[in-house]
Amino acid sequence: MVLYAEDFEIGDEFSLGSQTVSKEEIIEFARKFDPQPFHVDEEAAQESMFGGLVASGWHIVSITNRLMTDALFDRIALEGGHGTDEVRFLAPVRPDDTLTGTVEVVEISDPENRPEHRDVSFAVTARNQDTDVLTMTNHAMIARRNNDH
Amino acid sequence: MVLYAEDFEIGDEFSLGSQTVSKEEIIEFARKFDPQPFHVDEEAAQESMFGGLVASGWHIVSITNRLMTDALFDRIALEGGHGTDEVRFLAPVRPDDTLTGTVEVVEISDPENRPEHRDVSFAVTARNQDTDVLTMTNHAMIARRNNDH
Repeated sequence: MVLYAEDFEIGDEFSLGSQTVSKEEIIEFARKFDPQPFHVDEEAAQESMFGGLVASGWHIVSITNRLMTDALFDRIALEGGHGTDEVRFLAPVRPDDTLTGTVEVVEISDPENRPEHRDVSFAVTARNQDTDVLTMTNHAMIARRNNDH
Repeated sequence: MVLYAEDFEIGDEFSLGSQTVSKEEIIEFARKFDPQPFHVDEEAAQESMFGGLVASGWHIVSITNRLMTDALFDRIALEGGHGTDEVRFLAPVRPDDTLTGTVEVVEISDPENRPEHRDVSFAVTARNQDTDVLTMTNHAMIARRNNDH
């Protein structure tokens, strides 16, 4: 079953699946995209303010995006995104942490020039086994069920 | 030479290096983190609104973060980040596009409870060979040169 724009209401919540992140994945991602010592070098990370290796923030965002794809984007008539606001890294993610999260519909609007879509904003919270690690707000463009407007 | 908080002024601009993104890299990133058909499947991408394979937005952000690390973060007394606002994807990035960009200091403030730091916000613009593809605003925490306040 595909969810269309009309199927969303403010306050709707969706639970994400979970994914565990390994030390090797943390280092591999960070070597490519975020090679700070505390993301790629275990010894240097011990001496850093984190006291050990931590995942790149963009790695956390990317894993969360994958969890959102599997739980939500694959089930809705998603036509693209306008962007993301208020990306906040709340706590470090360490090797063998398991990430999961929730997504809540926080805003719905009808763009004047695109009657076939609604703009839907999702407040995303990702957490590990201990605490919230990331919040962000994603702005999606979702097709209406009946496109004959 | 390391740049400290006192070395930044509003309006300062930094040029990023460049990186070319291959079809294989686009598919590899998206299979892990953003497996929408137009990111991972060339045939499906042809039929999509993009008319061909395009990079995940989070891949563009991650590559831009790498360019920022090499051009800027590695040279400054960066103590961490508060997060990122206003991530906007302006145009698709396709296989063999070359990304580069600029970073401008747009806000500097002195947090009351952390006299050893200044908070510095960077407006980031990434572009390919044709046009701007991404804008975002990163909020960094940078150490002061003289920590004896």
